[in-house]
Amino acid sequence: MRAAFHDDLDAIFNDLTNVCELVSVAVRDATTALLDARNDLAEQVIDKDIEIDDARERIEENALELLGLQSPVAGDLRVVVAALRMISDLERMGDLSVHVAKIARLRTPNKAVPELAQPTIAKMAEIAQQMVERTCQILRTRDVSAAQDLVADDDEMDRLRRQSFAELLGQDWTHGVEPAVDVALLGRYYERIADHAVTVANRVVFVVTGETPADS
Amino acid sequence: MRAAFHDDLDAIFNDLTNVCELVSVAVRDATTALLDARNDLAEQVIDKDIEIDDARERIEENALELLGLQSPVAGDLRVVVAALRMISDLERMGDLSVHVAKIARLRTPNKAVPELAQPTIAKMAEIAQQMVERTCQILRTRDVSAAQDLVADDDEMDRLRRQSFAELLGQDWTHGVEPAVDVALLGRYYERIADHAVTVANRVVFVVTGETPADS
Repeated sequence: MRAAFHDDLDAIFNDLTNVCELVSVAVRDATTALLDARNDLAEQVIDKDIEIDDARERIEENALELLGLQSPVAGDLRVVVAALRMISDLERMGDLSVHVAKIARLRTPNKAVPELAQPTIAKMAEIAQQMVERTCQILRTRDVSAAQDLVADDDEMDRLRRQSFAELLGQDWTHGVEPAVDVALLGRYYERIADHAVTVANRVVFVVTGETPADS
Repeated sequence: MRAAFHDDLDAIFNDLTNVCELVSVAVRDATTALLDARNDLAEQVIDKDIEIDDARERIEENALELLGLQSPVAGDLRVVVAALRMISDLERMGDLSVHVAKIARLRTPNKAVPELAQPTIAKMAEIAQQMVERTCQILRTRDVSAAQDLVADDDEMDRLRRQSFAELLGQDWTHGVEPAVDVALLGRYYERIADHAVTVANRVVFVVTGETPADS
């Protein structure tokens, strides 16, 4: 029974990794759509989100079935509950990518992000992208040492968010209100993607070590 | 065993209701802090969030213990998992109230929301507040008929969010970038509080009826 449970659990982790890859593509494509004013890619991210939502439902069903069939012990239960939470986080990361894509779509053929704000937003997007990829890798390998790096990336994300605010509130900002609002919301979306990446990584640490990192 | 499970479940629902009341106070006080530039109330919302976080941990522990002790059947598992998700939603609603309070604190002694934007933001806050209170009531009574009303409120919230954007992007907006960014983010926070309220209500519907409403 216990061996079967762990096989099933491996299957759930594989599923989570696959969803993470879908999210990774969504974040990357949404960012390209945003920075290059690519309406086609923005539409693609928006259309494909249903795949992530469907995968979420499927994984939830599998996890709940696993719980129902196996009468798992307390430790196993926590693992399954952690898996259920990870899939929620991943789905939210997909939704946030859709929000980025929608801002891109709204402004095409123009670029939503003015040149002055572009380097910082591009850097935030890059960090978010790296964090998502690292999270997928942690899910794939369950190598929890990589989870530590995510915390450093998240600190950098916070710094960039403050820098982005300073740019759009500074004297050099000549673009008016609309792009400022776009940039502020984009910063929020990338920050939230990063937050969820850290949360997922911390949940993997919990599953592997039984300990929850302090900032999860 | 089954009777004991349901007693424990009642206890979890009582706990969820209590956390919902804390969230309701947080949303209300954060809004008063925002609209009346009350730094003391803003600080209070920020300080008290730890109570919601602590309650979350306690309820999670109880729910997981319940799962571990009772070997619940499949239907019961889904209920406990739903409870675990509701507590996550409620905690996020608390966090979003803190975000509102932090904008209020940042701008005191001034008001963060310029007069032009004030009626719409006040209306969004009022709808969010009503939705949270209704959610608490649904948790308390498990009267799922009230969950339908929440969907109508959520539509009104979407309409107000569009109106708020129209105001801050319109020709009458003379307040520049900073208040526009504040108002855009505040709109986002209230919208998310409303989203989570709908989600919690839908989870109660699921627990009571076994059916998930379409938009949960």
